[in-house]
Amino acid sequence: MKIILTGAAGFIATNLIPRLLDSGAEVYGVDNFFLGKREYLTRAQSRRGFTFEELDLLDRDRVVAMFERVKPDRVWHLAANSDISFGTTYTDFDLKGGTLVTYNVLEAMRLAGTKEIIFSSSGAIYGEPAVHPTPEHYGPLFPISLYAASKLACESLITAFAHNYDLRAWIFRFGNIVGPFPTHGVIHDFVLRLRDDPARLTMLGDGTQSKPYVHVEDCLDGMAFGHANARESVNCYNLAVDGATSVNDIAEWTIEAMGLRDVPIERSGGKRGWKGDVPYVRLDTSRMEALGWRPRMSSDEAVRRAISETVAQFTGRASALRP
Amino acid sequence: MKIILTGAAGFIATNLIPRLLDSGAEVYGVDNFFLGKREYLTRAQSRRGFTFEELDLLDRDRVVAMFERVKPDRVWHLAANSDISFGTTYTDFDLKGGTLVTYNVLEAMRLAGTKEIIFSSSGAIYGEPAVHPTPEHYGPLFPISLYAASKLACESLITAFAHNYDLRAWIFRFGNIVGPFPTHGVIHDFVLRLRDDPARLTMLGDGTQSKPYVHVEDCLDGMAFGHANARESVNCYNLAVDGATSVNDIAEWTIEAMGLRDVPIERSGGKRGWKGDVPYVRLDTSRMEALGWRPRMSSDEAVRRAISETVAQFTGRASALRP
Repeated sequence: MKIILTGAAGFIATNLIPRLLDSGAEVYGVDNFFLGKREYLTRAQSRRGFTFEELDLLDRDRVVAMFERVKPDRVWHLAANSDISFGTTYTDFDLKGGTLVTYNVLEAMRLAGTKEIIFSSSGAIYGEPAVHPTPEHYGPLFPISLYAASKLACESLITAFAHNYDLRAWIFRFGNIVGPFPTHGVIHDFVLRLRDDPARLTMLGDGTQSKPYVHVEDCLDGMAFGHANARESVNCYNLAVDGATSVNDIAEWTIEAMGLRDVPIERSGGKRGWKGDVPYVRLDTSRMEALGWRPRMSSDEAVRRAISETVAQFTGRASALRP
Repeated sequence: MKIILTGAAGFIATNLIPRLLDSGAEVYGVDNFFLGKREYLTRAQSRRGFTFEELDLLDRDRVVAMFERVKPDRVWHLAANSDISFGTTYTDFDLKGGTLVTYNVLEAMRLAGTKEIIFSSSGAIYGEPAVHPTPEHYGPLFPISLYAASKLACESLITAFAHNYDLRAWIFRFGNIVGPFPTHGVIHDFVLRLRDDPARLTMLGDGTQSKPYVHVEDCLDGMAFGHANARESVNCYNLAVDGATSVNDIAEWTIEAMGLRDVPIERSGGKRGWKGDVPYVRLDTSRMEALGWRPRMSSDEAVRRAISETVAQFTGRASALRP
């Protein structure tokens, strides 16, 4: 089983690679190190079965050549701009790093005869839905960030390629995924800010934004379960948890985990963290449950574990977060 | 009122331009003549208030420069590849001619301060839905053609730009639009085939494909009504008719309109006209009706009138279609 893994130096791939290698797969990872970190590849590169190629997926000729050479059986397509606010400043950022890249991957699959793709989409495609928790069949889909617009464009390309070229696709619409080896995100940012300046914590929005947080171990379990058990041509599932956690709670727990107290929190104010941010997210998880899977950790449990993991990783000290 | 009109030499724009000019607008049309026809511009070019620029909308610098120069108040963005089957052979055709072009238009609007966009989407974005007639809130959206994937990608870009840069958008998901000055489509193709060889008529699929056909005059009425009366930030409406017409009926009526009889029909067979074709389409029109608008012509009436118009245009003879 040969697998091409995009975004191989990113957060989710770093956690995924050991599982894929343990299963006996040959893994061919690619990354351009825009968000991915070279040091995250170290574990993987010491193992048999893992090959890495530095590659910008926008370079279609190189992508096609790599797929022709490897002839992968399956693609885990995790590469993306995960810094949503960035896409508001550079308006073609997600178009290139999401939509065009995904087209290139699909076209390379078509030419190489690769038939399976597992794709990391996002609950952000629902925009600001009128229904909570939001199910997979919710519509109309009016995404409010260019990141989410690109994720929906990618899904559409995948379903059209699946129909026309007999691919099979597993699309997972993620909640906020957290855990070790982060490259971005609120926990990552809070830990680094407090490490660099423990006298204050700045926060975007008023802190009441609340979203479902999924631990990456649950996320990877869910993707593997979904891939093994969902057998349509196009399989699309919310991958989330019931409930949600607020940014204020994340801030408080991060301060505690860092062994700090009475750190003043400076909120930028407003309902949203940034333009295009969806401040209230609840995802309906019943479709995955009907398939037979549910996450082990609640949103709060996932956040607290990820805070401890991130504090340990970036400060070298054990988390002081009480159970 | 300055309007930039993309796809200005195309089917819908050719019918639209006289209305815009009659309303007193200054119209700046652009087209690359990929599908649009130079001769269709003749009427418009003889009128005050119309300016044409030959432009490939993929050339972002020129698009941005034109918007900066014109500073339009509104964009009618009708440019697209409308030859759906073409996009299956050239897999980046709709990505470029739909998605990237729409991004360029939106980015040019953002930079020029243009605040209103009217966009021609398609009922094809619903893929093969489980609900008929299909309402605007139907989901999940799994388009099966690269054309439809691109239309959904365009919608997503529009909703994200609308949120982030305070644009207002009117998205119309069209049924099959028919009428004078066609550049493509089943009626256009049947008339030209019978004109060139009246001894046979070839047809894609088994002829039972059936879709709602809307006359372009109704389509333009509906868009104008929707723009005037729908006042959300993002306004999205099916623009269609109740019911549908089969390809077999269109063939029979076209043969009759051409003054022919007993023309053998050679069907390629199969349920679909081509890979990615949706053979059974019914669109829920109740949202437009609730807004206060409904088409004057039924699907059959629209088809029969368009056949007569197309026969007259391409053969120079009056239609022999009986009322």
